[in-house]
Amino acid sequence: MTNLSYGVVSADVLTSYDGLSFLQALIDGTLPQPPIGETMGFHLIEVAHGRAVFTGTPGMQHYNPIGTVHAGFAATLLDSCVACAVNSTLLKGETYTTLELKLNLVRALTKDVGPVRAEGRIIHRGRTVATSEGDLKDASGKLYAHATTTCMIFPAKL
Amino acid sequence: MTNLSYGVVSADVLTSYDGLSFLQALIDGTLPQPPIGETMGFHLIEVAHGRAVFTGTPGMQHYNPIGTVHAGFAATLLDSCVACAVNSTLLKGETYTTLELKLNLVRALTKDVGPVRAEGRIIHRGRTVATSEGDLKDASGKLYAHATTTCMIFPAKL
Amino acid sequence: MTNLSYGVVSADVLTSYDGLSFLQALIDGTLPQPPIGETMGFHLIEVAHGRAVFTGTPGMQHYNPIGTVHAGFAATLLDSCVACAVNSTLLKGETYTTLELKLNLVRALTKDVGPVRAEGRIIHRGRTVATSEGDLKDASGKLYAHATTTCMIFPAKL
Amino acid sequence: MTNLSYGVVSADVLTSYDGLSFLQALIDGTLPQPPIGETMGFHLIEVAHGRAVFTGTPGMQHYNPIGTVHAGFAATLLDSCVACAVNSTLLKGETYTTLELKLNLVRALTKDVGPVRAEGRIIHRGRTVATSEGDLKDASGKLYAHATTTCMIFPAKL
Repeated sequence: MTNLSYGVVSADVLTSYDGLSFLQALIDGTLPQPPIGETMGFHLIEVAHGRAVFTGTPGMQHYNPIGTVHAGFAATLLDSCVACAVNSTLLKGETYTTLELKLNLVRALTKDVGPVRAEGRIIHRGRTVATSEGDLKDASGKLYAHATTTCMIFPAKL
Repeated sequence: MTNLSYGVVSADVLTSYDGLSFLQALIDGTLPQPPIGETMGFHLIEVAHGRAVFTGTPGMQHYNPIGTVHAGFAATLLDSCVACAVNSTLLKGETYTTLELKLNLVRALTKDVGPVRAEGRIIHRGRTVATSEGDLKDASGKLYAHATTTCMIFPAKL
Repeated sequence: MTNLSYGVVSADVLTSYDGLSFLQALIDGTLPQPPIGETMGFHLIEVAHGRAVFTGTPGMQHYNPIGTVHAGFAATLLDSCVACAVNSTLLKGETYTTLELKLNLVRALTKDVGPVRAEGRIIHRGRTVATSEGDLKDASGKLYAHATTTCMIFPAKL
Repeated sequence: MTNLSYGVVSADVLTSYDGLSFLQALIDGTLPQPPIGETMGFHLIEVAHGRAVFTGTPGMQHYNPIGTVHAGFAATLLDSCVACAVNSTLLKGETYTTLELKLNLVRALTKDVGPVRAEGRIIHRGRTVATSEGDLKDASGKLYAHATTTCMIFPAKL
């Protein structure tokens, strides 16, 4: 991962892509991965129409006061994958926003878990609303958390 | 806030406090604030029985690919305040874990919003299950996000 | 409650009211309460801008297979109050739909609880999205369940 | 379905079955389907370890004040299928309760949709907590709503 770069993209650049091509450009390195990825330690590794996968490795820097990884780590990776599953379906000119996110934490993450994989998959894609689901698993496929989201989609301005 | 320190606390130290005294010790500086606070840039500022308040300032380091603060920032602060609202009710020897978190994002956070305040309040405290709610507001009281959580409580081991 | 009537209202009648006046007409008996109220045994009793209250009495007809009132009873009353809290803010010509509902069940309802009261309150009212919260309590104020919802609002067609 | 009967089962009878056998007995007619099924018009039709399916037909008796089927109908069927997906995994002597339910409504149900099918599937089965998901579809497989739940499991009393 020596060539990962992080940064922001202007609105003009963002809207010059359809959703899938934009996310593919983050993976290819044509565009930088977002700053939150550097801060929390995760990045996008796979994308397809209606599907997006992020990876990161929980460490001591993610710990909460009670001796495990803070739920914010799982929330951030799960929000990323479920939102990008929606993003991957956007036509050029369409934009979106997340209305709500709901996550379940089924096992504690610790610094000993190793790299985890957050995969998001679209459930419903309407004209103005989309829903998707995601799960967070370790390298052996053990489940740590899962989520659903509701996103609002704004049509392209003509 | 020049004297903020971050770090982990051993299980022995953790279980030597009741919930409210433990959280008060994080604020007093007797104990370090958790590592996730340093990573994401937020810390606990107020606690009472059934109530906890965190603050942080969204910046460029929290940006997502579409030009606003990533939902993971709000999720991390809201999870912290709703979980600590539960934590503040724990008797000495009781422990807890978060089962699920649900958040609504009602306005976009940007680097221009300034410091935000995430306040959690207990809704229901049963013997083995507790629920709480929280909201994230800017200095003028404008609402950006709100959340609820379900936590499981483990009785003290005799 | 001898003068409660149940029935449907045509779209023309519905759109001739603003949201608050429409709900007030259900309480006054100018318009019939909705059929689901007869089926599940509950009705609207109070409404104000951003607030709506329903009442019903759980009975044997609401039981699940495991000896308590089915969660669908609380879900139906809570959905009603949180949705109508949003409905009460609609201008004439605006319509809305529920995107998602999340409820917590904190105590079991039984046929011995007596009448319950489900109160919904608006949290956020934007131009196209609104959120609200609600709780379900018995006559003594004991909490049985609470909920939040996300609704989408459609502007009046000009 | 001429031989569907509805009623309650005593705690003694309930605890004499494991979860899967209990639910199978509801389908076989050895035990009555629960009263809520008669009230709302739905019943259990399929069960396997970690999976449960209910069916019902939305009608005028389920209508809300705004001209579609009330969200309580989808909530009741979805709660049933996700809870029974958990129920189907219970060992003899184990009991459970629903802590929370979250549902998304992606299309409006009307009286013209015909029979719908609510299928629940287990996601995570721990010793004391389980999560499951479900969806509500019409006969052609079109999706109307989906849900997740968190249940708490109580070990058999020795």
